[in-house]
Amino acid sequence: MEEREISQAVISRLPRYFRYLGELRDEGVERISSQDLSSLMHVTASQIRQDFNNFGGFGQQGYGYNVSYLYDEIGKILGLDRKHNFVIIGAGNLGRALGNYMNFERRGFILRGMFDNDPEVIGRRVREINVMPMEELESFIEDNEIDIAVLTLPKAGARHVAERLAKTGIRAIWNFAHVDLNVPESIQVENVHLSDSLMKLSYNINRYMKEQGKT
Amino acid sequence: MEEREISQAVISRLPRYFRYLGELRDEGVERISSQDLSSLMHVTASQIRQDFNNFGGFGQQGYGYNVSYLYDEIGKILGLDRKHNFVIIGAGNLGRALGNYMNFERRGFILRGMFDNDPEVIGRRVREINVMPMEELESFIEDNEIDIAVLTLPKAGARHVAERLAKTGIRAIWNFAHVDLNVPESIQVENVHLSDSLMKLSYNINRYMKEQGKT
Repeated sequence: MEEREISQAVISRLPRYFRYLGELRDEGVERISSQDLSSLMHVTASQIRQDFNNFGGFGQQGYGYNVSYLYDEIGKILGLDRKHNFVIIGAGNLGRALGNYMNFERRGFILRGMFDNDPEVIGRRVREINVMPMEELESFIEDNEIDIAVLTLPKAGARHVAERLAKTGIRAIWNFAHVDLNVPESIQVENVHLSDSLMKLSYNINRYMKEQGKT
Repeated sequence: MEEREISQAVISRLPRYFRYLGELRDEGVERISSQDLSSLMHVTASQIRQDFNNFGGFGQQGYGYNVSYLYDEIGKILGLDRKHNFVIIGAGNLGRALGNYMNFERRGFILRGMFDNDPEVIGRRVREINVMPMEELESFIEDNEIDIAVLTLPKAGARHVAERLAKTGIRAIWNFAHVDLNVPESIQVENVHLSDSLMKLSYNINRYMKEQGKT
């Protein structure tokens, strides 16, 4: 399939389509019209058609979409038909929580190693994984064909670790550190800034209260 | 200050300004021009001015912005000059990780309670907080002036809990469950769909490899 240059806004919506289609498939739904998908997902049918047209449209609209086919195709576009090995750098609470989250494995993201520089944490086990010292990071990435590094460490350390990662063959960083990273464009970065998200929530609480005249 | 209707895109950028200004302030920087802020943050100076104009502009551009003043003003807009009490519903790995994250407290978000329906988890302590049974949720929210509920439970339970929350005085839900919630518009919802974020990363890895002719 010939793909055009797809905007990140479209990409951001793909996992949500994938999620809804997976639920429909699990419920035994075989076909769905863009109108029905539209009311289920609270987006316009025109938005859905435009989004899908970026990938060739996924078949006859008159008969609706084949749920199972569409689910598989979007999964392939998202690269979920491949396995990705990942490591977690920073074995604190959040790192261990992500390490214990089995759903990632179901999607093909396989935890291979965890790293920390705290002697008290090194050697601890998270599932079958031993937390390793930071000195072993580069050799481990190379020996185990690691694609993705998850950064769950304080921001002071994150920039330095990102510089080290930039010299390895890593393909992507999933960044939970509260800082923006500067890495070469060959490394994909996806940020999850939890504090930013909480502040946005705080803003929206305030805005709503003001609108209601409650302040 | 008279506020216009502000788009969620602008709101999404405010925490990032807040973060950078906090770092500048900590480094002792007193004033910064929109040009310098622009190159630091990798956004255009015109974007910065447009964003700030939504809130009255924050003072003389000729002399640059007063960092400390701007930091405080954006903090107020984000509602960070108030305290928000929150509870965590779902005391699994992610719930406990968020419960242990002290930085939220520094921003005025105070963890008051944790809830779970698993008898093995109920009664466990996360910092000074005992995990309580789900039956006590509504009365606890009322007695402790809880503003925000953090949902860190499997998606099967999340919709039902959201329906229960909708009948309380809660103002906002920070939703980590892998499902979209239907709640009245008086309740602000901010989603953190970790799997969606990981799939987006996976897509971008694939796209880059294709561009490089590596598949």
